[in-house]
Amino acid sequence: MNAYDALMDFTRETQALAQVAGRLAWDQETVMPRGAAPQRAGEMAAMEAVLHARRTDPRVGDWLEAAEAGDDVAAANLRLIRRSYERAGKVPVRLASEIARVTSMAQGIWAEARAADAVDAFLPTLDEVLRLKREEGAALAAGGDVYDAMLQDYEPGATGEALAALFGRLRAGLVGLREKVLEKEPPAPLTGSFDEGAQMRLSRQIAKAFGYDMTHGRVDKAVHPFSSGSGLDVRITTRTNPTDPFNCIYSTIHEVGHAAYEQNVDTAHLLTPVGEGVSMGVHESQSRIYENQLGRSRAFTGWLMGQMQEVFGDFGISDADAFYAAVNRVQPGLVRTEADEVHYNLHILMRFDLERALIAGDLAVGDLEAAWNDRFAADFGVAVDKPANGVLQDVHWSVGLFGYFPTYTLGNVYAGCLYRAMRDAVPGLDVGLAVGDTTPATDWLRDKVQRHGGLFEPRAVIARACGVEPDEQPLLDYLTEKFGGLYGL
Amino acid sequence: MNAYDALMDFTRETQALAQVAGRLAWDQETVMPRGAAPQRAGEMAAMEAVLHARRTDPRVGDWLEAAEAGDDVAAANLRLIRRSYERAGKVPVRLASEIARVTSMAQGIWAEARAADAVDAFLPTLDEVLRLKREEGAALAAGGDVYDAMLQDYEPGATGEALAALFGRLRAGLVGLREKVLEKEPPAPLTGSFDEGAQMRLSRQIAKAFGYDMTHGRVDKAVHPFSSGSGLDVRITTRTNPTDPFNCIYSTIHEVGHAAYEQNVDTAHLLTPVGEGVSMGVHESQSRIYENQLGRSRAFTGWLMGQMQEVFGDFGISDADAFYAAVNRVQPGLVRTEADEVHYNLHILMRFDLERALIAGDLAVGDLEAAWNDRFAADFGVAVDKPANGVLQDVHWSVGLFGYFPTYTLGNVYAGCLYRAMRDAVPGLDVGLAVGDTTPATDWLRDKVQRHGGLFEPRAVIARACGVEPDEQPLLDYLTEKFGGLYGL
Repeated sequence: MNAYDALMDFTRETQALAQVAGRLAWDQETVMPRGAAPQRAGEMAAMEAVLHARRTDPRVGDWLEAAEAGDDVAAANLRLIRRSYERAGKVPVRLASEIARVTSMAQGIWAEARAADAVDAFLPTLDEVLRLKREEGAALAAGGDVYDAMLQDYEPGATGEALAALFGRLRAGLVGLREKVLEKEPPAPLTGSFDEGAQMRLSRQIAKAFGYDMTHGRVDKAVHPFSSGSGLDVRITTRTNPTDPFNCIYSTIHEVGHAAYEQNVDTAHLLTPVGEGVSMGVHESQSRIYENQLGRSRAFTGWLMGQMQEVFGDFGISDADAFYAAVNRVQPGLVRTEADEVHYNLHILMRFDLERALIAGDLAVGDLEAAWNDRFAADFGVAVDKPANGVLQDVHWSVGLFGYFPTYTLGNVYAGCLYRAMRDAVPGLDVGLAVGDTTPATDWLRDKVQRHGGLFEPRAVIARACGVEPDEQPLLDYLTEKFGGLYGL
Repeated sequence: MNAYDALMDFTRETQALAQVAGRLAWDQETVMPRGAAPQRAGEMAAMEAVLHARRTDPRVGDWLEAAEAGDDVAAANLRLIRRSYERAGKVPVRLASEIARVTSMAQGIWAEARAADAVDAFLPTLDEVLRLKREEGAALAAGGDVYDAMLQDYEPGATGEALAALFGRLRAGLVGLREKVLEKEPPAPLTGSFDEGAQMRLSRQIAKAFGYDMTHGRVDKAVHPFSSGSGLDVRITTRTNPTDPFNCIYSTIHEVGHAAYEQNVDTAHLLTPVGEGVSMGVHESQSRIYENQLGRSRAFTGWLMGQMQEVFGDFGISDADAFYAAVNRVQPGLVRTEADEVHYNLHILMRFDLERALIAGDLAVGDLEAAWNDRFAADFGVAVDKPANGVLQDVHWSVGLFGYFPTYTLGNVYAGCLYRAMRDAVPGLDVGLAVGDTTPATDWLRDKVQRHGGLFEPRAVIARACGVEPDEQPLLDYLTEKFGGLYGL
């Protein structure tokens, strides 16, 4: 067997084990008995140890040295395996397990601090997580920029500087749009109570309408919606709130976008590095374009209103324009995960600046809450009422995910670019959406983005799909046109 | 660190990984999307390869050589680890993963063939499974009897010859009892339709009445009821049939018996070899004594009738003796899992003889259906109507479980012995059961059998609990007395 084939056999087995570990995490969030947690921690640690040993196995280094790429797919697999192997080799085992230990403790401490609205109870832990992650980042950067090194775990090729420039241009546009929208009278919101079982049934139907393949997936409830798995078993979760069916519906559509990226990769790449989504940013471009540009469009919401009427009967809104306005109601809230399209990225840009300053050492953990609250007041014109709605609202930093937040907005930027290209390329997009047929849109995304998996680098897959290098203008134009229309600007 | 401690650290991690593999199997039977099967096969094979590598890791051999047992628990752990290590060393890794891959696929093929009543669609797969398992058995037997070698996976210490002798004595008694019972007029059966959701709710309530700990387990539906996992996460499945609520109820009680054995092992033994049930026969003794000697007793069925009336309203039987007779109605049916206590072991004895012949090479897979149907007609006086009720009814052979069936009857034999000892030792057994309180019985079983896990050898744990060596007589006496009373023999 040649080196490439041997490497790929080994890698497929590693990927299969990573899928198993992912399924354990799904199990934990959906069906695991409460009392199983201590045993599950041991099971996850054992799986992590197996995976770490495989990712740093010296044979991988030997195979990488000897392997030759016969085609583009092989070249991409080798590139991705090399990246992972070199990354694993740069972080001392002691540091890796210290990070695993501290972040798993830190998540619990964060959850307790959030529940008690006690920032001080979390800060020493955050300080420790930050110290360890900066040490890891320095090891990965090998003299280069530490934050840039961290970004590579989520968005290969991204740099803090380029993101800062992109986000700066975006921010100017968003702040202007936001001010104009908030001067206007908001539309009437959805009110009433909506059976949670019926919400789940409707969400499954909508998931199918977006092409989610139930023979290779399933929809369950979880506290935080997520998508899990690659290839032939890609599961999603959603949540229900009796007074807000949009939460369930749009969480579902969002996760279906993530799942579609994993379900629609060419099956020839099953259980290989190329067989998975290439970055968090490109992943988020799929979830966001499904959720927003498609799912919150005038055309689709027209169909959705009829579906909701069938399921829930009369719910107080029966005019399609009023329903569209209710779905897209703009409000300056405190919580990122509940934000509308106009505000969402402002939440992210703030986190990006704060975490970059933390990593650079320009902001001390002790000053983080004040910095958060000042920036929030400046950007949103609202004071943070309590830490649970402020600096403690997200899990990310507690588990060491520095460099992850910007991929959310990068995904929105990519979604803007893809939507512009799709509208130019696909006739009858709205005609389909108006009758619940998403296939003109989802077929295009599958062909241009999803089927390639990890074949191209993140920016390259978007640039190839759009025919131009991605930037913020299409997203800003889309938001200006959409909310300009909705709010009569 | 001394050799024993190092060995146990390594073993705990291996047991944790084995729990993960077990959870994957649970997932496959309950929640896995249908189309995930091919990928799951790869995942199971990868887990199997990891486990096999750990079980044959030369360090285990070194540690075993150097380790000293400080106490009985350590001695039992060393004995069990040594047995597993020696077994694993005999099976080539290629063969072990091939078996994992083929049986994972075979299960789906069996299920489809059963649904379609298409024996031919399954036979080539069964032939392949049998070929691989015989190859494995030959490797394990190392010149000895292949079937005996297979038995050790499920019932250490058992031999085909000793089982054949035991089963021969049992068969004589069962056939005689069966003939006498069938000469009599059968009691009125349960009739009507029973809501399946209500069956599941009642079953969960009954599971709790038998001490099943829902904070460390859960109840789901599956085609073939089973119990899965050890320690802090022990899940059971059951099934529903709208016209036969007893199927759901007694499948549940049966699996609760298995689960109790795993949930009630002393937690000091968590994730060690001693921390699990010692054999399938002893396991089945717990499931059967829960299901039959306790669950189908006159005392418990009196309470159960009231529970069913509360859940289902009037269902046509309101006399406790008539209900007890309906629960214990003897009928020569086609399906093992629906068999009464008089017929159940006859189903097993038949499978034992057929699989022994398959393994010995005295019966070809192509002749299996005819052999099954002939033997069934001879033993039960009834013709098999379709393969789903005949040779395709059980999952076991599709997943390579040759040598497993006899442990069912061995479990019944052990349950007979335990029940005799329990009746002598525990006053107020029936007083409790009559009000749905199983604790006098289940506390005794926990103390005498379950908490020990793998501390003693299978026959030894039964002999210690009963004060005598186990044989078939208590089971035959119990059946003769019970059905003699019910049928006025």
